[in-house]
Amino acid sequence: MPVNLVAPDPAGLHAVAGVELGTARAGIRKPNRRDLLIVRIGAGATAAGVFTRNRFCAAPVTVCRENLAAAKGAPRALVVNTGCANAGTGPVGLDNARAICAAVAEALGCRADEVLPMSTGVILEHLPVDRVKGGIAPAVADLAPGNWLAAAEAIMTTDTVPKAASRRIMVDGKPVAITGLSKGAGMIRPNMATMLGLVATDAAVAQPLLERWVREAADLSFNRITVDGDTSTNDTLLLVATGASGVTVDAQGAGPQAAAVREAVVAVARELAQAIVRDGEGATKFITITVEKAGGEDEAAAVAYAIAHSPLVKTAFFASDPNLGRILAAVGYAGIDDLDVGRIELYLDDVHVATGGGRHPGYREEDGQRVMKQAEILVRVVLNRGDAATTVWTCDLSHDYVSINADYRS
Amino acid sequence: MPVNLVAPDPAGLHAVAGVELGTARAGIRKPNRRDLLIVRIGAGATAAGVFTRNRFCAAPVTVCRENLAAAKGAPRALVVNTGCANAGTGPVGLDNARAICAAVAEALGCRADEVLPMSTGVILEHLPVDRVKGGIAPAVADLAPGNWLAAAEAIMTTDTVPKAASRRIMVDGKPVAITGLSKGAGMIRPNMATMLGLVATDAAVAQPLLERWVREAADLSFNRITVDGDTSTNDTLLLVATGASGVTVDAQGAGPQAAAVREAVVAVARELAQAIVRDGEGATKFITITVEKAGGEDEAAAVAYAIAHSPLVKTAFFASDPNLGRILAAVGYAGIDDLDVGRIELYLDDVHVATGGGRHPGYREEDGQRVMKQAEILVRVVLNRGDAATTVWTCDLSHDYVSINADYRS
Repeated sequence: MPVNLVAPDPAGLHAVAGVELGTARAGIRKPNRRDLLIVRIGAGATAAGVFTRNRFCAAPVTVCRENLAAAKGAPRALVVNTGCANAGTGPVGLDNARAICAAVAEALGCRADEVLPMSTGVILEHLPVDRVKGGIAPAVADLAPGNWLAAAEAIMTTDTVPKAASRRIMVDGKPVAITGLSKGAGMIRPNMATMLGLVATDAAVAQPLLERWVREAADLSFNRITVDGDTSTNDTLLLVATGASGVTVDAQGAGPQAAAVREAVVAVARELAQAIVRDGEGATKFITITVEKAGGEDEAAAVAYAIAHSPLVKTAFFASDPNLGRILAAVGYAGIDDLDVGRIELYLDDVHVATGGGRHPGYREEDGQRVMKQAEILVRVVLNRGDAATTVWTCDLSHDYVSINADYRS
Repeated sequence: MPVNLVAPDPAGLHAVAGVELGTARAGIRKPNRRDLLIVRIGAGATAAGVFTRNRFCAAPVTVCRENLAAAKGAPRALVVNTGCANAGTGPVGLDNARAICAAVAEALGCRADEVLPMSTGVILEHLPVDRVKGGIAPAVADLAPGNWLAAAEAIMTTDTVPKAASRRIMVDGKPVAITGLSKGAGMIRPNMATMLGLVATDAAVAQPLLERWVREAADLSFNRITVDGDTSTNDTLLLVATGASGVTVDAQGAGPQAAAVREAVVAVARELAQAIVRDGEGATKFITITVEKAGGEDEAAAVAYAIAHSPLVKTAFFASDPNLGRILAAVGYAGIDDLDVGRIELYLDDVHVATGGGRHPGYREEDGQRVMKQAEILVRVVLNRGDAATTVWTCDLSHDYVSINADYRS
């Protein structure tokens, strides 16, 4: 059961003019499930992406980067499959990814390097190219602007809920839609982006500005979540702007129009990223970790991630056990050599837990217990070293995480 | 059930002349269990220690360091309790640790700063000083050279098996004993040493040489294990040399006598460290990870620990599932920016799994499956970047790890 997350209402997912989505059951890994998604993008759209920093990056990540560059940031289609990550597959994997792009290009009447591939699923196995190709015609026949929810369903792996988010804003009296989808539940510790995210808008945004925005949006969303600390081989986040709304934002990102579109892009990206944590494998709690008054943002992030990755902290959340010394221990090993533990303050929601290197005099076990029982918990660490701060979102570590990952391939 | 680990045979634990051990049931956390250990060390012994690098280090760690320095490396006693780590306890915790040392000193007729304290158990709670003091007299009455097994039992927390190891070697025709004990099963990712290890020998070893040996032994043993990546607040490893055997090793560590004693010290430390992994919380598999031909030892360790800490890799071991792409993914995010994945070789025991950035042509799933089903598994990664190598020992991540840590305080 994901934490306070339900499947999005299709009526709330605004169509993005210039973007059509179609899905098919290609039988890539399991029969009778939607596992192939094609997204057709109108002429004149711009796009930018951020990709995994895992050195073992998957073949589709390599090809997606190459094609995005070759198409000068103006792709015409995406092709996304679940069931096989096409990672750890060497030169054959690259050939397979390119073959899929070529087949999609032929079906849509564009160039192969105008098609961006993404894959998710098992690592170290080859893509069943013929089955994927067999799904292209039905997916193309299915293309429509209203298919965002079906598209989100078609890219799920261990996700239990499809993830999509949407905003509609008025810019100079015209409606602009910003809609996105994402997937991911395990192997989640994005380093640039998460496994398969797409955010599209029908505003017109110059490609260099889109490059900046996709990085900024990732840093405020997908780059601040973790489920298990495992950075995926396939992380990809794409931001697409079709311009079909008739609204064009300032090419430098100046002015209120650009600010409004950017804010909505970040909001959609953040909602999608948080949805991944809420649906984290086995998650029963949604944990927000804020580190304040740090000596720098890297330092704040190091402390936040030390807490977020500690199996002991995560199992204590699962058990609703206010075994809060585990949080202090994680702060202590986060790698800040000159940390003065006597200056640290620790809060759980509104409860002041620790001060002066020990338990706060007013702390009562029942207050900690009350907060730990909540489905959503804020951990706030104040280092009193400087002015930097950051926030990371994570989930607990439960029996179901072990079950899901022990059984993943079976 | 620990992995290929049974309680040591008391007959195999050689007494170390000059070292006596006594235990008591002080009721620190639970009634009717041995939870207090006093070790009396003969006059003229030398000692050296390594301690946690966790900045939130426990009060006994601070006092142990101080007293070891004040006693000029010649302590007369150790006092060790389980049930309460006396960590995250601020100035009160320091006072409590010193009060315990003073009480032991009074009972044994030595100075308070000749007593070294160690504690293990729950963090963020105060030591019940009166109950600990109440246990001192019975523990002192129990002092005897043959109590190594009872001593190992008295410091257990979530350990299921007491951990002790011993060697007897002949040096210049005289017998020299090297015997040690350790504890630990969770919050295990030592950074200098593990939670509560003691190795004693009745050889005479100059204190500066002992300082060198304790660091070298830790680096070859306790600093190369991990259960859950959580560095404890209380890690302490002490090495004691009484000289009571009549054998004195060269003060610079030169010659075959010193080499023989050092080798036995390292062997005992390594056996104790591996015992911690074999008894890791919930462990069902003992995993040895060797990284070879790395560009440096730090690089080798980074790759080994990325694999050893990956929850996805650890659950795959638990499931005996050769989902080996997870190992490659961990290698890919270990932080080597210029890693050429095309040059990496991956082996599971004798099975060649990956080469050239993908699956080895001769790899068969049933071969991977056969190795994954074993209780002891060797993962060998060859980076082909240089001459450095390292080995790390870890265990799998099972349902029982979650159960144990969700229930720890109840």
